[in-house]
Amino acid sequence: MNKELNLKTLIVKKPLKLDCGKTINDFPIAYETYGTLNEEKDNAILVFHALTGDQFVTGLNPITNKDGWWSYAVGPDKAIDTNKYFVICSNVIGGCLGSFGPSHKDPNTQKVFGTNFPVITINDMVNAQNNLLDHFGIEKLFSIVGGSMGGMQVLQFISNFPDKAKTVIPIACTSNHSAQNIAFNELGRQAIAADTNWNGGDYNSKDTIPNKGLAVARMAAHITYLSKKGLQEKFGRKLQEREDLKFGFDADFQIESYLRYQGSVFVDRFDANSYLYITRAMDYFDLAKQFNGNLSDAFKETKAKFFIISFTSDWLYPTQENKDIVIALNSIGADVGFVEIESDKGHDSFLLDVPDFLSALKNFLEKSYTDN
Amino acid sequence: MNKELNLKTLIVKKPLKLDCGKTINDFPIAYETYGTLNEEKDNAILVFHALTGDQFVTGLNPITNKDGWWSYAVGPDKAIDTNKYFVICSNVIGGCLGSFGPSHKDPNTQKVFGTNFPVITINDMVNAQNNLLDHFGIEKLFSIVGGSMGGMQVLQFISNFPDKAKTVIPIACTSNHSAQNIAFNELGRQAIAADTNWNGGDYNSKDTIPNKGLAVARMAAHITYLSKKGLQEKFGRKLQEREDLKFGFDADFQIESYLRYQGSVFVDRFDANSYLYITRAMDYFDLAKQFNGNLSDAFKETKAKFFIISFTSDWLYPTQENKDIVIALNSIGADVGFVEIESDKGHDSFLLDVPDFLSALKNFLEKSYTDN
Repeated sequence: MNKELNLKTLIVKKPLKLDCGKTINDFPIAYETYGTLNEEKDNAILVFHALTGDQFVTGLNPITNKDGWWSYAVGPDKAIDTNKYFVICSNVIGGCLGSFGPSHKDPNTQKVFGTNFPVITINDMVNAQNNLLDHFGIEKLFSIVGGSMGGMQVLQFISNFPDKAKTVIPIACTSNHSAQNIAFNELGRQAIAADTNWNGGDYNSKDTIPNKGLAVARMAAHITYLSKKGLQEKFGRKLQEREDLKFGFDADFQIESYLRYQGSVFVDRFDANSYLYITRAMDYFDLAKQFNGNLSDAFKETKAKFFIISFTSDWLYPTQENKDIVIALNSIGADVGFVEIESDKGHDSFLLDVPDFLSALKNFLEKSYTDN
Repeated sequence: MNKELNLKTLIVKKPLKLDCGKTINDFPIAYETYGTLNEEKDNAILVFHALTGDQFVTGLNPITNKDGWWSYAVGPDKAIDTNKYFVICSNVIGGCLGSFGPSHKDPNTQKVFGTNFPVITINDMVNAQNNLLDHFGIEKLFSIVGGSMGGMQVLQFISNFPDKAKTVIPIACTSNHSAQNIAFNELGRQAIAADTNWNGGDYNSKDTIPNKGLAVARMAAHITYLSKKGLQEKFGRKLQEREDLKFGFDADFQIESYLRYQGSVFVDRFDANSYLYITRAMDYFDLAKQFNGNLSDAFKETKAKFFIISFTSDWLYPTQENKDIVIALNSIGADVGFVEIESDKGHDSFLLDVPDFLSALKNFLEKSYTDN
């Protein structure tokens, strides 16, 4: 869908063995950078995006013509200060914004992969992204940062590459996907599969797009990103441009109109099969399982400084799941800070203008950078 | 869909003016009864069902060949003791088990209504059901009881007919549908509308059934009926009949398999258009709005004894929303009891074997009946 765009792309020549057993070669990773890498190459921050994010962290996103997804947090003088740090972000593999994914052609058959693309994991994603460090000649990142699925990648990255980051900031995430979160992801996948245009994943050859199913998946997910209280305060029972109920099935309530809008704009920028693959990677994420059930062991090789952030009203990745990571780190005497930010904005808090969060993030980074 | 079944049906001859402005005539209400109406006709309990319930409260449901939806609570010697009380329950109008609904034929056109059926409200539902009292010659019910949407009907019924019930038991409900709950209902409606088989509501004439969309709607709703903790304890990350992840999109996890099953069995017993109409009625429910924003005024004419029940892990109709009803009743000096039951089973607690709940319900009824 983005063939006309000139995306910055690294072609990874080194074969990557995936968790599913398959090996991929000569595959693209699309990325963006912000700020300038200093001579010492010690000011780089690798940002990992969430389920529907992309490499366009800040500034204008050329697909949506809107601000990048983390414009509140990343930019000149912001928490992740691009005057000071060199920010790298890449589209995850499995995604749909230039990195190797199900909308690419299988080089063997010259047909679009669709659901013939290999099922990838969070581990595969970070192993792929590690190639960016070699590309930029960076031995050690100043920081790795990400929220939600981005936070899962942060945890997996430092586990895989314990010497490659000085500081580690997982935000609003978990070390293993809960049953409720698997359930919501499965709901989204079933909504896509229920769309006859999905066609078993082979919609490219039929020139049909499962936009209705993908929109429903997005609506479902969107509800989970907001808190009950936040929704009540913002929308409550307010009506949508009408004086009274219309006794029909149009959007009477603002919340209905809002959800429909969220669904409709999403399908313009996202690929249905990528949605399947990325949610699958999230569901498969269970870091402790990789270490025989001992989460602490995932971090025992690193000397990095951790800072973990959760939000009070996040019911998707509640504080307790973030604290479980803190406990695992504390139990091995790791350098770990933790803050729970008061916010009614739910899981989405990490993407929004939540001053306490942004200042905590800024202060942690600045203090750690000064200690460099 | 139930044309072969011999459903007990009352044809209501008295015209009913609906909130939408239309009037319906000669319409059916399908109902069931359990136990025996005593000579004094003072032992009747009117049970109101929830979104996907029906008149088959207990015993064998002839559609599903499974136990009725409230078999834990209703039956001989149970909380709602059919040795003692005469239990009446009817399918709501808008439903699909015999009462007047969108799958019925419009007498004017002889075509199935579909979305030409008038949009109905909780108020319309209870006004329709009030006809059952005349039918049985009951002046005053011993009790009115219901959970979830059933609880909304309880509140509306006593507001409309303040002298027609001695005791009033709204369970796990609200006096006005929250933005989050409207959002989840709208998600379900959009899932149905996204199914090309829905065909704008006119699927009967095309002999297509939007089962895929309806199944997705059910899956979404089902997640909201369970608590995060309950899901984690019951399913966690347990795999479905496999030793390890399969790296595909089949149901790897038990929770996925469970959700798919819930969707698939639901479509065998429910009509997609009824799902639209009933969720709409729930979203429209705002009892205080009927009294210029003062919820207490809804109850000021009644001398009934209220008993309100909520569940700790119910995040769909949380304790606070139930307490708001208690507060409104207390502020006018009504006779009101309230209990919050400890349960990890989420909103579904009222349908399940939750002993503290069942004994509270039983004791309240018995004490009130003895005081008769």
